[in-house]
Amino acid sequence: MALNIRSFATPSATSPLGPLLVTRRDPRANDVVIDILYCGVCHSDLHQARNDWHNSIYPMVPGHEIIGRVTSVGASVSKFKEGDLVGVGCLVDSCQHCPSCAEGLEQYCEEGATVTYNGIDRHDGMPTFGGYSERIVVSDKFVVNVSEKIDPKAAAPLLCAGITTYSPLKHWKVGKGSKVAVIGLGGLGHMGLKFAKAMGADVTLFTRSPGKEAEARRLGADHVVLSTDQAQMDAVANQFDFILDTVPYSHDLNPYTATLKRDGTLVLVGLIGPVEPTLMTVPLVLGRRQVAGSCIGGIPETQEMMDFCAEHNIVSDIEMIDIQNINDAYERMLKSDVKYRFVIDMKSLQQSF
Amino acid sequence: MALNIRSFATPSATSPLGPLLVTRRDPRANDVVIDILYCGVCHSDLHQARNDWHNSIYPMVPGHEIIGRVTSVGASVSKFKEGDLVGVGCLVDSCQHCPSCAEGLEQYCEEGATVTYNGIDRHDGMPTFGGYSERIVVSDKFVVNVSEKIDPKAAAPLLCAGITTYSPLKHWKVGKGSKVAVIGLGGLGHMGLKFAKAMGADVTLFTRSPGKEAEARRLGADHVVLSTDQAQMDAVANQFDFILDTVPYSHDLNPYTATLKRDGTLVLVGLIGPVEPTLMTVPLVLGRRQVAGSCIGGIPETQEMMDFCAEHNIVSDIEMIDIQNINDAYERMLKSDVKYRFVIDMKSLQQSF
Repeated sequence: MALNIRSFATPSATSPLGPLLVTRRDPRANDVVIDILYCGVCHSDLHQARNDWHNSIYPMVPGHEIIGRVTSVGASVSKFKEGDLVGVGCLVDSCQHCPSCAEGLEQYCEEGATVTYNGIDRHDGMPTFGGYSERIVVSDKFVVNVSEKIDPKAAAPLLCAGITTYSPLKHWKVGKGSKVAVIGLGGLGHMGLKFAKAMGADVTLFTRSPGKEAEARRLGADHVVLSTDQAQMDAVANQFDFILDTVPYSHDLNPYTATLKRDGTLVLVGLIGPVEPTLMTVPLVLGRRQVAGSCIGGIPETQEMMDFCAEHNIVSDIEMIDIQNINDAYERMLKSDVKYRFVIDMKSLQQSF
Repeated sequence: MALNIRSFATPSATSPLGPLLVTRRDPRANDVVIDILYCGVCHSDLHQARNDWHNSIYPMVPGHEIIGRVTSVGASVSKFKEGDLVGVGCLVDSCQHCPSCAEGLEQYCEEGATVTYNGIDRHDGMPTFGGYSERIVVSDKFVVNVSEKIDPKAAAPLLCAGITTYSPLKHWKVGKGSKVAVIGLGGLGHMGLKFAKAMGADVTLFTRSPGKEAEARRLGADHVVLSTDQAQMDAVANQFDFILDTVPYSHDLNPYTATLKRDGTLVLVGLIGPVEPTLMTVPLVLGRRQVAGSCIGGIPETQEMMDFCAEHNIVSDIEMIDIQNINDAYERMLKSDVKYRFVIDMKSLQQSF
């Protein structure tokens, strides 16, 4: 057992995060040991740390947007070697034999995938600890290669914010000629703009806040629609093949379904709970429109996305922080005061130990 | 102008239907004149007659499940000739140049299709009158051939109840190996069972009423699930590729979305208004599930369905009535007291004039 892994953790739903030494397993034959360089800060880190989803296990080490270097590999690992730049996202294991796993869609594992933190390892029953930590041990199937061509700091958020937006755009076949809208300009939304643009789509940002036009265009939007302006909304009725809805809280979908073309799809990628106000069915029936959900992405697709990012020079727009500022960062995240993702420089951990 | 067409009509939202002579246009070059033999009674006839959708035009002659024989055709009509057995459904015209019309999806005409009754003819501005009538004049593009091999009385409901269920099953590629569920065993639901079975699917009926097992199996169901029995619902979690929801009023979709497989789709074919109770998004996101709508079907697909029915010997299960019983039939329909569609024998019109 590799004891004394320096980490940042929270002991309860109401405590700030602080330094904690945690235990990680000795590497198994198929494990990769990774020294963590950078870890992105996802909105769900905050929800989990504060037990907003009523399933938290403490102490908790959040973090599932991990970039690091391989320091050693288990005996049966051939895909990675010491020194490789790699990434780990939201998942670290799954059953590996259900139909979803067989298709490389481990996020939909029918036995439930093992999540990177706040999960239980399916072999030894130990809690999983995430990326706010100096080191992680992960099954090789759940590690992806990261090109040395891209900035590793800004690559960290690709592992969750990136794949969560890339996967539905690919699944619903967005490409050249597609008319795509992205709702919300946060950690996910800004990646949605970049990906949709790189895939060749004509891209619109829906936002409730005026003044984001220049910024949205810089990130890939061809058009910006103020969703609070009825005239602007009316002007885009029946326009979009695909809408990527990145809003992380319950909101009215009806103004957006009306902007879908016939056979268009609005995809929710946030766990927003109930749809309130309620969904109206007439626009669905009269336009054969669809409302769907999508959850992160599988490991093969995550690798595909990382390669796509290297090819198209896509990374997240980030603000670097030291781990000691994580509690402040959570407060700023609650106010959407970040452009567009905090990334922790994990070297800073040393100052707390 | 061809005056004095014997019909049954309602003069207002609160009046019973009764005999009325209406005026139909003289046939244009591309028109087909049809003597109506039979007309199915759709639930929407009742909604429209009583102005439940707040868009009714009076006097109204309902009826959009029409089977008849061609008595004459306009000069430019080559597809039909006198004596042909034909059908007319919910639509009698559309713009004919928008992308949806170009694809044969006239039901989604971007200028709005002309409906068979309670519509306005797009050329002469006259109100359209439906199939509770001795004769109708329809543009040839909106008339379909009906095989002499099938019972024309029982074929009438195919023009609405049939195509409304056939179209989504085809669009979402139901076939051999598909696991399909149908919600509701009414005019639409019983057709959904027949079509899904004929397409090769493994078919389940969801019903709230015990005692429908034998009947459902006769109509094509392989399995019957009592949706009020939680144990039965739990047993079919994650089972279905496709759910055809034929329930014609607002209802809880959440018990059903949980029975979809990953990537499964629940399709609403009724205009049920708001989704109440509200839709939960977690099952959508965590299974990439979809909720969609579908509206009747286009004319090419309606012809395809009529041919499919002739090939597979599929018709509706019907109860014949005389037009003089239409008001009683509406009351019985409100109580779901019909197996499974009323069809009016239009010869009975003569008794009222």
